[in-house]
Amino acid sequence: MDASALQLIIPIAGIAAVLFALYLARDVLSRDKGPQAMQDVADTIREGADAFIKRQYTTIAALAVVGAIVIGAVITAFETKDVADTGVFGIDLGIRTGFAFLVGAACSMASGIIGMYISVRSNVRTAAAARRSLVEAVQVAMRGGAVSGFLVVALSLLGVYGIFAAFGGLSGGQGTHDAPFLIVGFGFGASFVALFAQLGGGIYTKAADVGSDLVGKVEAGIPEDDPRNAAVIADLVGDNVGDCAGRGADLFESTAAENIGAMILGVGAFAIATAANWPNPQAWIFFPLVVRGFGLLATIVAIFFVRGSETENPMNMLNRGYWVTTILSVVGLLITTNVMMNTGTSVGANGIAPWIWFFLAGVVGLATSVAFVYITQYYTAGTFRPVREIAEASKTGPATNIIAGMAVGFETTFVTAITIGIALFASHWLGTQAGLKAADGHDVGGIFGTAVATMGMLMTTAFILAMDTFGPITDNAGGVAEFSRAEAGAREITDRLDAVGNTTKALTKGYAIASASLAAFLLFSAYIDKVNLIIGRQIEAGTQGARVLLTSVNLANVDVFIAGLIGAMLVYFFSSLAIRAVGTTAQAIIVEVRRQFREMPGIMDYSQRPDYARVVDITTRAALRQMVLPGAVAVATPIIVGLLLGHEAIAGMLMVGTIAGVLLATVLNNGGGAWDNAKKYIESGNLKDEDGNVIGKKTPAHAAAVVGDTVGDPFKDTAGPSLHVLVKLLATITLVLAPLFIR
Amino acid sequence: MDASALQLIIPIAGIAAVLFALYLARDVLSRDKGPQAMQDVADTIREGADAFIKRQYTTIAALAVVGAIVIGAVITAFETKDVADTGVFGIDLGIRTGFAFLVGAACSMASGIIGMYISVRSNVRTAAAARRSLVEAVQVAMRGGAVSGFLVVALSLLGVYGIFAAFGGLSGGQGTHDAPFLIVGFGFGASFVALFAQLGGGIYTKAADVGSDLVGKVEAGIPEDDPRNAAVIADLVGDNVGDCAGRGADLFESTAAENIGAMILGVGAFAIATAANWPNPQAWIFFPLVVRGFGLLATIVAIFFVRGSETENPMNMLNRGYWVTTILSVVGLLITTNVMMNTGTSVGANGIAPWIWFFLAGVVGLATSVAFVYITQYYTAGTFRPVREIAEASKTGPATNIIAGMAVGFETTFVTAITIGIALFASHWLGTQAGLKAADGHDVGGIFGTAVATMGMLMTTAFILAMDTFGPITDNAGGVAEFSRAEAGAREITDRLDAVGNTTKALTKGYAIASASLAAFLLFSAYIDKVNLIIGRQIEAGTQGARVLLTSVNLANVDVFIAGLIGAMLVYFFSSLAIRAVGTTAQAIIVEVRRQFREMPGIMDYSQRPDYARVVDITTRAALRQMVLPGAVAVATPIIVGLLLGHEAIAGMLMVGTIAGVLLATVLNNGGGAWDNAKKYIESGNLKDEDGNVIGKKTPAHAAAVVGDTVGDPFKDTAGPSLHVLVKLLATITLVLAPLFIR
Repeated sequence: MDASALQLIIPIAGIAAVLFALYLARDVLSRDKGPQAMQDVADTIREGADAFIKRQYTTIAALAVVGAIVIGAVITAFETKDVADTGVFGIDLGIRTGFAFLVGAACSMASGIIGMYISVRSNVRTAAAARRSLVEAVQVAMRGGAVSGFLVVALSLLGVYGIFAAFGGLSGGQGTHDAPFLIVGFGFGASFVALFAQLGGGIYTKAADVGSDLVGKVEAGIPEDDPRNAAVIADLVGDNVGDCAGRGADLFESTAAENIGAMILGVGAFAIATAANWPNPQAWIFFPLVVRGFGLLATIVAIFFVRGSETENPMNMLNRGYWVTTILSVVGLLITTNVMMNTGTSVGANGIAPWIWFFLAGVVGLATSVAFVYITQYYTAGTFRPVREIAEASKTGPATNIIAGMAVGFETTFVTAITIGIALFASHWLGTQAGLKAADGHDVGGIFGTAVATMGMLMTTAFILAMDTFGPITDNAGGVAEFSRAEAGAREITDRLDAVGNTTKALTKGYAIASASLAAFLLFSAYIDKVNLIIGRQIEAGTQGARVLLTSVNLANVDVFIAGLIGAMLVYFFSSLAIRAVGTTAQAIIVEVRRQFREMPGIMDYSQRPDYARVVDITTRAALRQMVLPGAVAVATPIIVGLLLGHEAIAGMLMVGTIAGVLLATVLNNGGGAWDNAKKYIESGNLKDEDGNVIGKKTPAHAAAVVGDTVGDPFKDTAGPSLHVLVKLLATITLVLAPLFIR
Repeated sequence: MDASALQLIIPIAGIAAVLFALYLARDVLSRDKGPQAMQDVADTIREGADAFIKRQYTTIAALAVVGAIVIGAVITAFETKDVADTGVFGIDLGIRTGFAFLVGAACSMASGIIGMYISVRSNVRTAAAARRSLVEAVQVAMRGGAVSGFLVVALSLLGVYGIFAAFGGLSGGQGTHDAPFLIVGFGFGASFVALFAQLGGGIYTKAADVGSDLVGKVEAGIPEDDPRNAAVIADLVGDNVGDCAGRGADLFESTAAENIGAMILGVGAFAIATAANWPNPQAWIFFPLVVRGFGLLATIVAIFFVRGSETENPMNMLNRGYWVTTILSVVGLLITTNVMMNTGTSVGANGIAPWIWFFLAGVVGLATSVAFVYITQYYTAGTFRPVREIAEASKTGPATNIIAGMAVGFETTFVTAITIGIALFASHWLGTQAGLKAADGHDVGGIFGTAVATMGMLMTTAFILAMDTFGPITDNAGGVAEFSRAEAGAREITDRLDAVGNTTKALTKGYAIASASLAAFLLFSAYIDKVNLIIGRQIEAGTQGARVLLTSVNLANVDVFIAGLIGAMLVYFFSSLAIRAVGTTAQAIIVEVRRQFREMPGIMDYSQRPDYARVVDITTRAALRQMVLPGAVAVATPIIVGLLLGHEAIAGMLMVGTIAGVLLATVLNNGGGAWDNAKKYIESGNLKDEDGNVIGKKTPAHAAAVVGDTVGDPFKDTAGPSLHVLVKLLATITLVLAPLFIR
């Protein structure tokens, strides 16, 4: 097959995914919404979520417009003709970058809104389906999640492709060569929005969760999701705005930024291919887009495999679909590498064609994705040692529960780092075997191998995101069932689904971390490529004094070391601000619910309806206020460090910050997930004393486990996921603002 | 004054410090031991501590002998004639390195034993003095601490000097040039012992603390330090073996390793001085020893300034002494730099003599030390925002207490990293202004500036260590007073001293972290110097194929990135193992105390004496067993990474691991200290409700604060301090085993 024919897969797969998502949405929306009581709760949740999203995205949009103008102005001022990395510069480049930033930001916002739109409508339908059938409930929740998964990934694919086309990427030759550098603003815009979406949503959801639990369960002694608790609707709203909208924006920017980074690396291969007269040199740049197109098609097929019997573990149904996606992705990868990495007669190590080496590197990426799915299950599911250990430690109270949970969280970095290390080493080594050498003789294949691995990993993003959104939908379905006092059978099914949803949410975080780590290297290399393009022009122009190319980011250079130290610190400091924001917002909720209990005595005997809307409103305002400081710190710190310490140091900050961020996010996500499931382990009656008696709900051990769960909430759902975004924001910020930092 | 005359200060100050320590020890030992009841408790504590130390150090000594043999064999095999970094190689070098390792290990063990010996005798005398006078109690405790402080620092000074002399360092010329490289084994031996001493002691002390609290305060409802609790003696023993012996070994190895690293950097300056015909080129190598000699003399004077009135805050008395040490150290630094860094007519930037630039760099080090004293106070003392914030969060239960504490812990990295960054940048910049250029034109002064700053900081180590040991002595004095049911007045005084001791212990950790960070850079540079010496020989010999000098530790190199990732992971994984070891050991204690309560019913009405010795014995065995795994992981990981990924990658692991270790230790130490003092803040009646009523002991808020305190225990006294040692172990291990990693 011809490579340019294969490129058609990009728009075809993108549009197919959108159409399929519309079909799924129609399917979900046409389903039974259950009795009026359910619909009432669901309507209240939807109104709260709509109100939050509207206000949050208005704020973010305003910030994004300011951001776009500032970036455009900075680029205009600094990326002048003699320093520009491409033929486009000055005001022209400034406008294009600002425009790309805005398009990226808009697509990212659209992803969040879409995820939210469908999830607040799927929850009640899942609850209604749970009154009849487990399989039907799984399918409603999974299809609702898939709408979000497909649209987010398709938007990212079509968005990057569209802006690439708009900036001349389809012209072939120099236009195609330059376009990847011109679209970096798109990635920055996406990161920028994702940061605030994740922070605002994460603060909202966990403040509502923690606040509602403390004031309801602990203080007033009423059950979770009890309608007498004025904060309970805010809690249910939180699942949607944090987990759905936040994670959607997170993965949108991951795929966009990593895709753009891989295209920049493709430029190096493009030059080699052109020089060597390989067929279709531009295919090396288009490769990331094509491979993602195949991933979307694989996921469409896989959705039909999410089925099973009423007695089956729902996790098995989802796993089945995941494996179908993975296996079909391998096939898609094989086709893509074979067609697009055609090097004519040139061969790599051992006489094996380069495309085979890159195919294997892509398989490494897919394998890493699978590995993380199982690693996360081991550390956060109740059937294995870590969760049992925390549950056992709960017998001696909250202190030992917390200590055990921290030990488990810290421990999870081991297998995470080793797996990432092996994946990076293997994909890099496979890449070097392909024998891609630049004109000056240095190897390009190794880094390109890590890029192929990253893209391989990203093939399954739509399915992963569907599984992720499955989590908050089923969580909400449980809340709706509880709140509307649905029949016990329905609540039993939603409880089972909720437990599975907890696992799938944890899996997605593991996946996001793994892809961020694999991608770190590629984004870092893209930054170096861009810096050297600019410095190369400066050297040619001779206007900037003696300049040398950036061949090494030397840790023995004191500025690099300091920048690395600050990068690692930023990760902790940012998490501190995010965690504290949850505490502050939760306090505001607690004060309000206490007031309602005090001033509306009829609430406790159900004769008065609590003012849910007021709590939702207070939470919304507090969360949006609290997201500003950590967001500003995240954006400002790399810029300040880059300005003070220069372009080599900021690269050190990026790398060390990535390492630190990935590991701390692992600790926070897995620790939090393990605490959560240790509580569930006890609630399910799995913990026993020396004589074999069950230590279940309402025991001191359970109370201790609830403390651990509450501590883990802001870790795993606010700080941890925000760190994913922070890590990639570091990459996109340095990529876009590189001209500012060169000295 | 002549530089070689000034070198005499090294043995003089060392011996003076030893004599002064003996005088202080006589003074303390001659004091009143109080009533028989006090002496009985103290004897029981002493026996337990002796038993632990004997068994621990027997184990460690055996490990050290094995370590020495292995290292000797490895050096013999790998550092052969054509790759040796000096004229000494093969079996000769192997034996010397093994010997230096053993001497370092022995000195480190002696430091631990001495610290312990005097502290278990000062505790009862402090308690007895507290029956009469606050000032006297402060003096007994501080003098007891100073014995340890002086002997540890003097041993480190005389040990490094002695082994340096033994290996030809006093011969002048090539002998002096080579000797710093030959003594690196001394630093490794010290680190090796410190690691196990800190781990074993840290696990012991916190397991006893946590276990005793859980089984006594929480389960049986009896007060802390109540004689009916069989674990209470183990808890008091723990203060000595963990805080005294552990921290003594920690600071011993800090001073030794950093001193040796600075001498290695001095070799570069020595070469420049020789080429330029400056007077006394060898003075650049001797400089670190001389400056530390002045630090010891300054501390001797300062001890006499620890005095005050009965109504004064005891912290003020200690601070007065600390300021005297600092100011006299500035004078000592001025003399040393002026005499020893005599560059004849050569001048640095702006026509200012090089020694002035280096003097200023040294002042930066002293200023950093002062800065950390105040930063730590801000974050861990009850009068400031962070501790108050945690106390306030305790009102809503243990979960919010933990969340607030984690937020504070994470936050402390900000000011830590910024301060270290400024100190590194300033001392490096000042150093570059001195204009020390190597023969190939690259700047040597910058790194040497950071070395001078580190040595400046180390001038106050003896005083800091005295203040640190003050902590466990007063803590123990409180326990002795409580246990022997001493008069209320005495207990009130020991309580006041204990609160001060908590702060001084926290200060020392801040100090240890700051010095480790400053030193990271110098040890790293020493490693690069050593690697390049070896590679230089290999290039000359031409036997090893094409070799290039290590000019850059390039983060863009995938092996370096992976090694950095593993270095940062090691920090978490090691902490996880250390924290879990505390939990496991505490469980063993809880089981035993429960058994005693059950089988000896007379304990509760004081008619039966609990079997304290058995708990001490169980704790000892469990702690020693539990220290092996984290210790082995810490030693093995850098060796494995170095062997697999080579000499450049291991340097990346060292640097990124140091950054990660310093920051995580900051989080653990300060978080733990803040939790501890939040509990004390509530106990002192400072927390109030909305109506101004005190929320004190035995309230739910206090219970929540106790949970935080318990969580913080293994953080701040096991994992955190062990990380200090880990960071320096990474440095000494790479320094000694460098020949193994070169490829």
